[in-house]
Amino acid sequence: MVASLAQVLTGHGANILDADQHRNEPAGQFFQRIRFDFSGLLTDRGTLERALHEVAQRFAMDLQLFYQTDVQRVAIFVSQYDHCLYDLLWRHRSGELRCEIPLIISNRPDLAQVAEHMAIPFVVLPITPETKLEQEAKEIELLEREKIDLIVMARYMQILSPGFVQRFRHRIINIHHSFLPAFAGGRPYHQAAERGVKLIGATAHYATETLDEGPIIEQDVIRTTHKDSINDLIRKGRDVERSVLGRAVRWHLEHRVLVHENRTVVFE
Amino acid sequence: MVASLAQVLTGHGANILDADQHRNEPAGQFFQRIRFDFSGLLTDRGTLERALHEVAQRFAMDLQLFYQTDVQRVAIFVSQYDHCLYDLLWRHRSGELRCEIPLIISNRPDLAQVAEHMAIPFVVLPITPETKLEQEAKEIELLEREKIDLIVMARYMQILSPGFVQRFRHRIINIHHSFLPAFAGGRPYHQAAERGVKLIGATAHYATETLDEGPIIEQDVIRTTHKDSINDLIRKGRDVERSVLGRAVRWHLEHRVLVHENRTVVFE
Amino acid sequence: MVASLAQVLTGHGANILDADQHRNEPAGQFFQRIRFDFSGLLTDRGTLERALHEVAQRFAMDLQLFYQTDVQRVAIFVSQYDHCLYDLLWRHRSGELRCEIPLIISNRPDLAQVAEHMAIPFVVLPITPETKLEQEAKEIELLEREKIDLIVMARYMQILSPGFVQRFRHRIINIHHSFLPAFAGGRPYHQAAERGVKLIGATAHYATETLDEGPIIEQDVIRTTHKDSINDLIRKGRDVERSVLGRAVRWHLEHRVLVHENRTVVFE
Amino acid sequence: MVASLAQVLTGHGANILDADQHRNEPAGQFFQRIRFDFSGLLTDRGTLERALHEVAQRFAMDLQLFYQTDVQRVAIFVSQYDHCLYDLLWRHRSGELRCEIPLIISNRPDLAQVAEHMAIPFVVLPITPETKLEQEAKEIELLEREKIDLIVMARYMQILSPGFVQRFRHRIINIHHSFLPAFAGGRPYHQAAERGVKLIGATAHYATETLDEGPIIEQDVIRTTHKDSINDLIRKGRDVERSVLGRAVRWHLEHRVLVHENRTVVFE
Repeated sequence: MVASLAQVLTGHGANILDADQHRNEPAGQFFQRIRFDFSGLLTDRGTLERALHEVAQRFAMDLQLFYQTDVQRVAIFVSQYDHCLYDLLWRHRSGELRCEIPLIISNRPDLAQVAEHMAIPFVVLPITPETKLEQEAKEIELLEREKIDLIVMARYMQILSPGFVQRFRHRIINIHHSFLPAFAGGRPYHQAAERGVKLIGATAHYATETLDEGPIIEQDVIRTTHKDSINDLIRKGRDVERSVLGRAVRWHLEHRVLVHENRTVVFE
Repeated sequence: MVASLAQVLTGHGANILDADQHRNEPAGQFFQRIRFDFSGLLTDRGTLERALHEVAQRFAMDLQLFYQTDVQRVAIFVSQYDHCLYDLLWRHRSGELRCEIPLIISNRPDLAQVAEHMAIPFVVLPITPETKLEQEAKEIELLEREKIDLIVMARYMQILSPGFVQRFRHRIINIHHSFLPAFAGGRPYHQAAERGVKLIGATAHYATETLDEGPIIEQDVIRTTHKDSINDLIRKGRDVERSVLGRAVRWHLEHRVLVHENRTVVFE
Repeated sequence: MVASLAQVLTGHGANILDADQHRNEPAGQFFQRIRFDFSGLLTDRGTLERALHEVAQRFAMDLQLFYQTDVQRVAIFVSQYDHCLYDLLWRHRSGELRCEIPLIISNRPDLAQVAEHMAIPFVVLPITPETKLEQEAKEIELLEREKIDLIVMARYMQILSPGFVQRFRHRIINIHHSFLPAFAGGRPYHQAAERGVKLIGATAHYATETLDEGPIIEQDVIRTTHKDSINDLIRKGRDVERSVLGRAVRWHLEHRVLVHENRTVVFE
Repeated sequence: MVASLAQVLTGHGANILDADQHRNEPAGQFFQRIRFDFSGLLTDRGTLERALHEVAQRFAMDLQLFYQTDVQRVAIFVSQYDHCLYDLLWRHRSGELRCEIPLIISNRPDLAQVAEHMAIPFVVLPITPETKLEQEAKEIELLEREKIDLIVMARYMQILSPGFVQRFRHRIINIHHSFLPAFAGGRPYHQAAERGVKLIGATAHYATETLDEGPIIEQDVIRTTHKDSINDLIRKGRDVERSVLGRAVRWHLEHRVLVHENRTVVFE
């Protein structure tokens, strides 16, 4: 497979810039990410694409082709917490995140001013158990109108309905806190403080129907001590959440994350 | 309290070398560790002790006094894995762990040679469900004969009975792997690999009747990637387990760990 | 000393909330930070202060008293890079940094819009070798008019003159990148890439006359690999710089940093 | 190149298990590590080798072929410190390091007993400025007699002569402590304590004629605080040194480290 794809690419005049492979033992699935420059193409884009798809078919490969000129469009979902939103917007401004951000959706009005400063449309769609599906329908309409490729739940404090999640399979990134050991139930920082954990962490993952159990993209932790009040834990949690989410979004935008079953291969 | 204790100590000619305090908000318990030099004592040890206990009683304090000349005696429990045992023995040799290690107990004969090399008595007490209590009775006899202060479960693959644990309350340190998220059931490294976790960790804690749920002393993690095979995860797990256990044991031996309810204060 | 101070405080009805001590062996200097609540004072603030200063004098202690109601005033110095500025402003907004930020000074106009968004006065004072002292005089005038307590050099790309630094001794915090090994000369990220370092770091320190050699407040590193381009190194450097600077500024504002000779004691 | 090599391998019936590539921008050197299984070879080993070398020659590639059945032979050089030696021997026992260790050379007798326990020949060759070259000649004789592939300086406190180093180019791994900032001169831990550094680190690198400046294989750091005495710093240094050295040696033995000019590509 490696040889065939490389041959097709070089045969058409494309220049392989980077290639990463991974074989998932013992199951034996094979994953590959190739970044190539086709400015010196001997044929044309259509011919190359057909040739690549022909190889893919021959080996029963799942092939995805992305062009760097096709800038992805990202919608950010938020509620009242601003740390992840701020961080994503700053990373976007700084050029770290190659994307457009034409839409911020929130179930609350709190962060309107942040969006306004960045001149990004901010749509408030409050959600109650009764209005959830109706409001989600409006969200979907907005997302489709804006041709959104990726949804980032930047501490969006609502659970998406299964139908919503399925529609954007592997295109919704969520961030949540993680503890060793894990705590069930509400107020996890309070539980963590009571249990005296020495680390708190965050996990970025693709949203699936099962809350917080989708394929993990990135994780990290930060040390805590007995001196940390609940507020200190929350503060430390913010720092680790925003940096983990930032990396996960960047890797996704650079097509570095391949999903297979419930796990990811991240060609970092 | 701080003032009263300090006054008693200095009044008797003791010299405070280190003092750490912690107030556990909002409950308001107060924790303090004072290390003092009493070589220039104006009175005598007995008088000082009585005066300290008098202050403790006045404030309903729980007071513990340790003398650095009283070297603690440690028993190590092992099974077939040698990484934690090796590491503890090396740290002991290097002077990191101020203690004596007069006894290694195992339910298997595998590591007899390691003990022999270090000239430490190695007692094999195999355990079956039927013989558990009987064998534990023998262990207790050995531990008492050797005046053991601390038991370190260095990957001892047996669950101690509630009676055994209660007898050595806050004097048994256990190490176990930790994952984000946690995995129930057996073969956790296999589960972690299937779930594609990006971190694996270890937790050192005091053993309690509830398996793996005692007060946490120390935790740490190590990064993993999709490239890590199960063997790689196990190797990384070994590294993080032994360093976490080494710190927990050192802190305990230096009386840096105070336990309150189900959490610890570690005056690191 | 510990006993005397504690006695004076409790004798006047103040309630000690936190106390940290450190003895600097072998030199033997003693450092202490006490946080107390004086809402139940039996005397008055003036009497307590006089009593504390009396104890300080008796033991030749260097005493500093701060009231939490006296909110410190911070000026941020910037040039063209926005990552540290953005991060400080977000931390300020989020309540992490208890201070006022009434002034941003820059030698360039680039970041005016960021300041404007936060409604903070932004003063541009371009610097050339010829105008340096003259412009610094204007800066000092502004800083004094605004009663600035702390200057944060948030990637300010100018070297302050010795006179300026001396005027704000231990009240200027600077951030710079750090490498293992260190690289002399310009373009350190390029040098780091050529040398293939596996870690890049950042150091926050008080500015002294000797560039980048003042007392270190905080340091951290981030892993790099051969895959990281110079742009990747710069991106990673931004992340570690802003988090290290954020911690250093917070600790300073909470009076957790004591300086002795060329090192700090950080009562974290 | 990628295509040609892959084609030759698959054409001869070899099965590519892993492949890593790296292009060193902007210089444009290309690095590749391919691990393949040739149990199903259609031709024979000699034919495959000739075909691979032919491709290498065509593209002016530098090709190295290793067989997993060819177990490398490692000599460890030590002086008085045992932490790195102990750790390497334990990792070897545990199966982490696929190699034979038929020789330990020391300039001091201190660690003879450790070697004896592991039944590894231990040769003491004391070194003075006058005897250095003469003793190194004896070392070389021993190394050649034992067909040593890799020398690990596990805290060997002697500087190797340029002639010795050149003879084993990229086959000597050294470990040394690293600080931010770096300290020139002796007693670096004392200097680090005086400067109040917040991190201490270790660097594993290939030895070159210029002391401590060879290509870096791995680095890591550990946090320190003002509470750490010089002994604490040395203890922490030991922990980071041994884990960094362990990783570097493992990567080298698995042929994961490619050296180009003064930097490494580590296909971790």
